[in-house]
Amino acid sequence: MTPLYQRVAFIGLGLIAGSMALAMRRGGLVAEIVGTARSAETRAIAAEIGLVDRVTDTAAQAVEDADLVVLCVPVGAMSAVAQEIAPYLAQGATVTDVGSVKQAVIDAVGPHMPRHVHFIPGHPLAGTEHSGPRAGFAELFDNRWTILTPLEGADAAATDRLTRLWQGMGAQVDVMDPPHHDLVLAVTSHTPHLIAYTMVGVADDLRRVTDSEVIKYSAAGFRDFTRIAASDPTMWRDVFLTNKDATLEILGRFTEELFALQRAIRRGDGDHLHAYFSRTRAIRRGIIDAGQDTDAPDFGRSKR
Amino acid sequence: MTPLYQRVAFIGLGLIAGSMALAMRRGGLVAEIVGTARSAETRAIAAEIGLVDRVTDTAAQAVEDADLVVLCVPVGAMSAVAQEIAPYLAQGATVTDVGSVKQAVIDAVGPHMPRHVHFIPGHPLAGTEHSGPRAGFAELFDNRWTILTPLEGADAAATDRLTRLWQGMGAQVDVMDPPHHDLVLAVTSHTPHLIAYTMVGVADDLRRVTDSEVIKYSAAGFRDFTRIAASDPTMWRDVFLTNKDATLEILGRFTEELFALQRAIRRGDGDHLHAYFSRTRAIRRGIIDAGQDTDAPDFGRSKR
Repeated sequence: MTPLYQRVAFIGLGLIAGSMALAMRRGGLVAEIVGTARSAETRAIAAEIGLVDRVTDTAAQAVEDADLVVLCVPVGAMSAVAQEIAPYLAQGATVTDVGSVKQAVIDAVGPHMPRHVHFIPGHPLAGTEHSGPRAGFAELFDNRWTILTPLEGADAAATDRLTRLWQGMGAQVDVMDPPHHDLVLAVTSHTPHLIAYTMVGVADDLRRVTDSEVIKYSAAGFRDFTRIAASDPTMWRDVFLTNKDATLEILGRFTEELFALQRAIRRGDGDHLHAYFSRTRAIRRGIIDAGQDTDAPDFGRSKR
Repeated sequence: MTPLYQRVAFIGLGLIAGSMALAMRRGGLVAEIVGTARSAETRAIAAEIGLVDRVTDTAAQAVEDADLVVLCVPVGAMSAVAQEIAPYLAQGATVTDVGSVKQAVIDAVGPHMPRHVHFIPGHPLAGTEHSGPRAGFAELFDNRWTILTPLEGADAAATDRLTRLWQGMGAQVDVMDPPHHDLVLAVTSHTPHLIAYTMVGVADDLRRVTDSEVIKYSAAGFRDFTRIAASDPTMWRDVFLTNKDATLEILGRFTEELFALQRAIRRGDGDHLHAYFSRTRAIRRGIIDAGQDTDAPDFGRSKR
């Protein structure tokens, strides 16, 4: 297969960049992979494990002659990185990103982009609770969705080429407008993460009272929360700071529903609880049918 | 190995009873397994798949000559079942249960128990989101905790025998007083489940707005909530109705913490968010160290 891009440059070398590099290699999708990271330690690890073909010291060096530049830094760092690389971007290059929020990235990156590049924001809906250059694996995007949010008037050929790259890495691709992306993600990802963080924080406070019982008995449901809440703190801080409105809106709905259930518990309204719990069960079935999870029982996970 | 019990009787034949029966057989722990369930369909399935050696039509028949009786019905059904079987319990039999709440079970079952039986409440901290007689598997309890809450003056030999049975089924056993059990479970299980149900309910409301996007993009975090929220509605209704005080107390702490994070988001207080998210990450490490989960990345689950 002819490579889709001759040289891809990763700015940031964490879980997503590493997995993309490995998936690109697996698919023979690009001719050369260059990368850089702000941390000297991350650069050293990436070079040591051969995560990319060449590690550069600066972002400016990385983007030189690259026909694809992928911004894989926390959303809060996007603006500074965009400003830094702008003067060095090649004619006709595509610049994309993997940030969890799209409108804020567009606001941060867009103004710095020269007219001779194609800026096509993107977001792969995949990840694990691990981070850093050693966390990546080639299969991360298989059968997962990547959402592209091209701006009005975006070059169709450039968008199409980026779409084929993601498909080559195993993903399915959808196109969406940025505010809608941010709302959908507030529901499916951002608010659930905040809630998981909160519940784990509550348990941690109580842990001081009940020794290590919370950890010891976590198999009863709490464990899945800790898994979610173990994700990268910097990335998530930036998500909530930059998708503030949508997250606060969904949080408002969440607390409203929670108070209704709390009231049902206080009043002993079993019918209300049963009806609610039956309804949510059906949603699970929908997710399995949509191929986004398996039906295998999970709570006894370590035995499978 | 000499069987620990000659005849065990299961009242209720769902996920837990089925897994116990299979684990008892795996370990050669009991000579004969009898079972019954309220639903004729459940009894027919259990007989068809040979889940137990003998299926009886009534609970009274099941407990006849049994030296171990295991109540595997929702907490709300415990009192009626206890009353029904009481006259038929054998001299010196042990009666235990697997309910998720302990004080309420003691209040419901205790008064019906004749003096010639040993009532030793128990709770295996294991389960999956599936239910019914086909859901069980022998490995469910391996390396999981079972908590026994023997009453004051309980027979030490009877408690010891039941402990060895659970150990033979793969579990580790702890002893706790009932109110403390109910508080620990409110933190590690009951409140997390309520929160997961709530979040899935919110998403379901929004799904009407955003079509099936919520389901399609669930891999981003929401999926783990739907897994938790797919558990048996009747069981969970009874949990919240019977562990009301502890659940409401933990819910109060949860909403307090959530409001503090919500305020930090509204004010753009990134330091607060980052510090909070870093703290919760450490708890995850504790759970892995305690052997209650693996370190394998999970969100790309279907590929492993």
